[in-house]
Amino acid sequence: MKGFAMKKIGEVGWVEKDKPDIGAYDALVRPIALAPCTSDIHTVWEGAVGERTDMILGHEALGVVDEVGSEVKDFKPGDKVIVPAITPDWYSDAALRGFSSQTGGALGGWKFSNFKDGVFGEYFHVNVADWNLAHLPEGMPLEAAVMIPDMLTTGFMGAENSNIPLGGSVAVLGIGPVGLSAIAGAELQGAGRIFAVGTRPKCVEVAKAYGATDIVSYKDGNTADQIVEATGGEGVDSVVVAGGGPDILIDAINAARAGSVVSNINYFGTGDTLPIPREGWGVGMADINIATGLCPGGRVRMERLADIVKYGRMDPALMATHVFHGFDKVEEALMLMKDKPRDLIKPVVIVDENL
Amino acid sequence: MKGFAMKKIGEVGWVEKDKPDIGAYDALVRPIALAPCTSDIHTVWEGAVGERTDMILGHEALGVVDEVGSEVKDFKPGDKVIVPAITPDWYSDAALRGFSSQTGGALGGWKFSNFKDGVFGEYFHVNVADWNLAHLPEGMPLEAAVMIPDMLTTGFMGAENSNIPLGGSVAVLGIGPVGLSAIAGAELQGAGRIFAVGTRPKCVEVAKAYGATDIVSYKDGNTADQIVEATGGEGVDSVVVAGGGPDILIDAINAARAGSVVSNINYFGTGDTLPIPREGWGVGMADINIATGLCPGGRVRMERLADIVKYGRMDPALMATHVFHGFDKVEEALMLMKDKPRDLIKPVVIVDENL
Amino acid sequence: MKGFAMKKIGEVGWVEKDKPDIGAYDALVRPIALAPCTSDIHTVWEGAVGERTDMILGHEALGVVDEVGSEVKDFKPGDKVIVPAITPDWYSDAALRGFSSQTGGALGGWKFSNFKDGVFGEYFHVNVADWNLAHLPEGMPLEAAVMIPDMLTTGFMGAENSNIPLGGSVAVLGIGPVGLSAIAGAELQGAGRIFAVGTRPKCVEVAKAYGATDIVSYKDGNTADQIVEATGGEGVDSVVVAGGGPDILIDAINAARAGSVVSNINYFGTGDTLPIPREGWGVGMADINIATGLCPGGRVRMERLADIVKYGRMDPALMATHVFHGFDKVEEALMLMKDKPRDLIKPVVIVDENL
Amino acid sequence: MKGFAMKKIGEVGWVEKDKPDIGAYDALVRPIALAPCTSDIHTVWEGAVGERTDMILGHEALGVVDEVGSEVKDFKPGDKVIVPAITPDWYSDAALRGFSSQTGGALGGWKFSNFKDGVFGEYFHVNVADWNLAHLPEGMPLEAAVMIPDMLTTGFMGAENSNIPLGGSVAVLGIGPVGLSAIAGAELQGAGRIFAVGTRPKCVEVAKAYGATDIVSYKDGNTADQIVEATGGEGVDSVVVAGGGPDILIDAINAARAGSVVSNINYFGTGDTLPIPREGWGVGMADINIATGLCPGGRVRMERLADIVKYGRMDPALMATHVFHGFDKVEEALMLMKDKPRDLIKPVVIVDENL
Repeated sequence: MKGFAMKKIGEVGWVEKDKPDIGAYDALVRPIALAPCTSDIHTVWEGAVGERTDMILGHEALGVVDEVGSEVKDFKPGDKVIVPAITPDWYSDAALRGFSSQTGGALGGWKFSNFKDGVFGEYFHVNVADWNLAHLPEGMPLEAAVMIPDMLTTGFMGAENSNIPLGGSVAVLGIGPVGLSAIAGAELQGAGRIFAVGTRPKCVEVAKAYGATDIVSYKDGNTADQIVEATGGEGVDSVVVAGGGPDILIDAINAARAGSVVSNINYFGTGDTLPIPREGWGVGMADINIATGLCPGGRVRMERLADIVKYGRMDPALMATHVFHGFDKVEEALMLMKDKPRDLIKPVVIVDENL
Repeated sequence: MKGFAMKKIGEVGWVEKDKPDIGAYDALVRPIALAPCTSDIHTVWEGAVGERTDMILGHEALGVVDEVGSEVKDFKPGDKVIVPAITPDWYSDAALRGFSSQTGGALGGWKFSNFKDGVFGEYFHVNVADWNLAHLPEGMPLEAAVMIPDMLTTGFMGAENSNIPLGGSVAVLGIGPVGLSAIAGAELQGAGRIFAVGTRPKCVEVAKAYGATDIVSYKDGNTADQIVEATGGEGVDSVVVAGGGPDILIDAINAARAGSVVSNINYFGTGDTLPIPREGWGVGMADINIATGLCPGGRVRMERLADIVKYGRMDPALMATHVFHGFDKVEEALMLMKDKPRDLIKPVVIVDENL
Repeated sequence: MKGFAMKKIGEVGWVEKDKPDIGAYDALVRPIALAPCTSDIHTVWEGAVGERTDMILGHEALGVVDEVGSEVKDFKPGDKVIVPAITPDWYSDAALRGFSSQTGGALGGWKFSNFKDGVFGEYFHVNVADWNLAHLPEGMPLEAAVMIPDMLTTGFMGAENSNIPLGGSVAVLGIGPVGLSAIAGAELQGAGRIFAVGTRPKCVEVAKAYGATDIVSYKDGNTADQIVEATGGEGVDSVVVAGGGPDILIDAINAARAGSVVSNINYFGTGDTLPIPREGWGVGMADINIATGLCPGGRVRMERLADIVKYGRMDPALMATHVFHGFDKVEEALMLMKDKPRDLIKPVVIVDENL
Repeated sequence: MKGFAMKKIGEVGWVEKDKPDIGAYDALVRPIALAPCTSDIHTVWEGAVGERTDMILGHEALGVVDEVGSEVKDFKPGDKVIVPAITPDWYSDAALRGFSSQTGGALGGWKFSNFKDGVFGEYFHVNVADWNLAHLPEGMPLEAAVMIPDMLTTGFMGAENSNIPLGGSVAVLGIGPVGLSAIAGAELQGAGRIFAVGTRPKCVEVAKAYGATDIVSYKDGNTADQIVEATGGEGVDSVVVAGGGPDILIDAINAARAGSVVSNINYFGTGDTLPIPREGWGVGMADINIATGLCPGGRVRMERLADIVKYGRMDPALMATHVFHGFDKVEEALMLMKDKPRDLIKPVVIVDENL
């Protein structure tokens, strides 16, 4: 089978591999729709997960089940499925403790294009199919559904962790697809006023559609200062960090009022340490908590997010700005993610509409 | 001054009283908009709070500040305000413990038309004005804003207490104005599928507008059974009880799956005890919790709910089916609430548009 | 192999069966120490789980691993283990939702002596050994450790669910072994004053050793009234219901102050419905929540509770009032539990000290 | 009246001032027992709260009420009281939002020896007496009770915020009086294994008495590495930071396992920013949350902590290593705190045993 892979740090290309073997609880899946992620870019060009050789990329997919192991009960060949980016080992210490994304060590629930071949292959392996796959609801647009495996679960987790009081004020720093999902998530958690920090016009447009009430641009000065001023000197109840460099926690904490939560969903790629502002953090006593996490995966999460889409609570398809057709377009889509043209939010590859 | 009062159990009428005196932290307020509540009906015709003589009714109001005590800092005569139904003593044991609606004893945060004259007077007294009043945002429609003091805060609390997982399923039993607010609240808490149990066409229409996905009628059989069946034998993640007789907790618990919360916002007017179903509750071990509360009042809550309305998160004006003009229409509005015509959700009295 | 079984409702006796088969993730275990539970009594003489034929009883055990399936990694024959009463299916919807005791339906995590043969056999089957067994710490007294699988996890859960504020007041209704464990749990959750409701002198003695500060007896009048009076008319912050008849929730709610949680760990064996007091519950608005659950099982829970015992946070051996030696003493121990002599808290059977 | 004051940054001395005036809700109090705090040292010699002139120091006191305002109901002259270090404005936005220590701005609940004269005067002013004072239980040793106003409430909050699972593992970094209180707090929150990081023999002795099971010294290598190794490469469930320099969060996060909370109660006195370790924090996705806060004050908290002491849940007097007698000994006690002799945990001044 064919797959689009990281050949080594800094280099991508097509590879030919055997179809993966599956165990008794696993499934073999073919992709229906795929989306490249900024993480794929980090993985290849920044060496974010270390050196990898000919590892197939990708962890955002919808698929069709090709084969299942002997113990799989709820899925059979031909079933269309949502495949979460995070596929935990449910038999594990971290899952029993309630942190399934961290099974088998920090970030260990993230397997695709990290510890094993990803979803940019003609076939890919899914562990514990019954509890890591979810049925794709009939009739759901693929470019909407393909946002569920990573963008929605990550962005929504950002909002959930930020502990938004009903009607409370939120600032979302960064309005790429994860930040936009966090904005939609903030509305779904009952936010009142929502500040979106970003400048790209297309992103700003979707931010407003998802519930942002105030757009803040770094071009108008320090963004934390702008948020504090707009809230009468107070700062906001909740902050979601969905982008930014190693210093972004400084802005985040400075934009937060006493009693708030700063919720991080940003990948920090550089630096030994990340700075927190001593005074803004009240010399360590400001009642400003900092939350973090790796997006929840697994079946129940996917089913619940599918219901969010199915019942029209928000429309993730607004983020699918560039839609390609055909499996071989994965390469082009990934490079688009690398080049980030100004009108891009998220590229999607529809592998086969008829599958 | 004039007020519309409970003269005794079973009898209402206009009374003449002195304007209330105010203390150093208090305010005297005149009504701009008023709404009668089912609680007023319970109070008068069911003797829900016991015998009262010539007590002015009403606890849902928008107003204009007439006079403030010497220690009031943030409000001055002429300010338009939202007046919460619940006005806690912030200097109290229960408030320090985090349960401000229960200050001074169970339900003690509820003062208007319970321990003191209510808001259906030409003037009314508000304790601790700085922390129990909120500024009415300029331009907010009165028939929307007047839902904030009780309907929204009660219905939303119902949803908040029911611990809805993002994308989870919810059943709201009862679709009067509080139940409808609970439906809107469930959507604001991230619900996926929302079952609304009720039959009145006007209420059903608003339930759908607020996010209900399935309408369940008792005419089609036991409502809990219908919900369980519609969820594949599982039941829902969260239940809000927003109406029903003394036996309604039986339906509520039977509609809930293991791991859920049943959140009560229903007033129980009769019976020494309320029954819980032994088997449905897993012989006491089903991980089905039962939450209850009296709606939060106070300034911060009102401000946050005002932001919900201001930023268009939901439109409470849909519930204002009957709008009267003129203070003296309070009587007619209250009797409408008593008679409950089929197309009624909530009557509102606009006292003076120009105030 | 031999086992002590429920032959049918109302009748027990020894049976001869084949050793259970085990699957790839399972283990076969021989008992080292056993304890009968009130639930066994309910099961046999009250038909609590329905009719059963020749089902081996018992769900509280320490054991030694006899054989493991091919996929078991952390346990091998000869390992001494703690066996939880509740052994969830970790591959399940309820476990993914965070309610592992309810896997496969309400109370479905409870398998021993409910859906399959229990631990009162020469051998017994444990599903998902790696995540349902815990290593027995070397040197831990057996009569202490054998309280972990059910008594401690149940009683402690009662305290955890009751949301005790640090230094808060708690009432524990019932001082059998589960209630006593709840008292110890309340102290481990930071309770200040702890009321224990019960009368048996031996239980009272251990209640005090576990942290009870006030002993309340029904002989001195209504117990809720006594607690309310002792707290200056307020009631307590938290209530744990660890015994009592179908009406016990009335006492529990009447003893609770506004803002509290009533946490149930009592098995309700009779009645279609269980009554809640309407007035004591503030006509449904008192901010008195009712929590319930089935005790957590699984490996992580067992390991953590083993640490509680290992580090001397409390001594469960105080509850082992009657210690038998030899597997065949299971019958005598069970009948003791049925007869409940006045000086009994919990009987324990040491099967073989040298295993 | 006489008071021991910060004359300016770097200089202390006795001053003569008028007795403070009190408002309608306030009280004038005379000290019975006092304790200097490391914060006093930070205030004077590090300018932690900025320049102050002749500001009376001290915020840890027991006292006797001398005079009360007209609206005070529960206290009268002659009442012995516990005076919390933090005396919130209960009429405030932050208190309504649930963060009373942050009333009137970050750390605004801290008034004594910050915004107004402290407790090291012959008289001192207490705002909102009814809700900021607590009655001193009769017979409670003064050197125990005087730990409640700051040491216990701070250390316990550290443990509460660290979200310790019952039987979970905890590391407390720093074993001064606040760290020791955190250790006691961890036990009161149900910790199993407790690592205490520190070296002073007297502190180590009390750490063990309060429940520490493992003592970790920097002399044996990196402390985080030692904790990770001792836990089989995992790290602990909860970390409390109760001391250390600007880099201590690095150790704290590196000692934490995925899914844990790092709870800070350390005062950070220097540096623009505080570093978090990027890799140890899972590039921002490790599910390691960071909590912070200023210790809760107010009446309810003091009463609950008094119950902890009264019912023997822990004995704070173990920390009172140096007990002085007479008001004028405040100077000597404070200088002892500055010099930190090796056998010091906490100095206490008994002003007058007979008051």
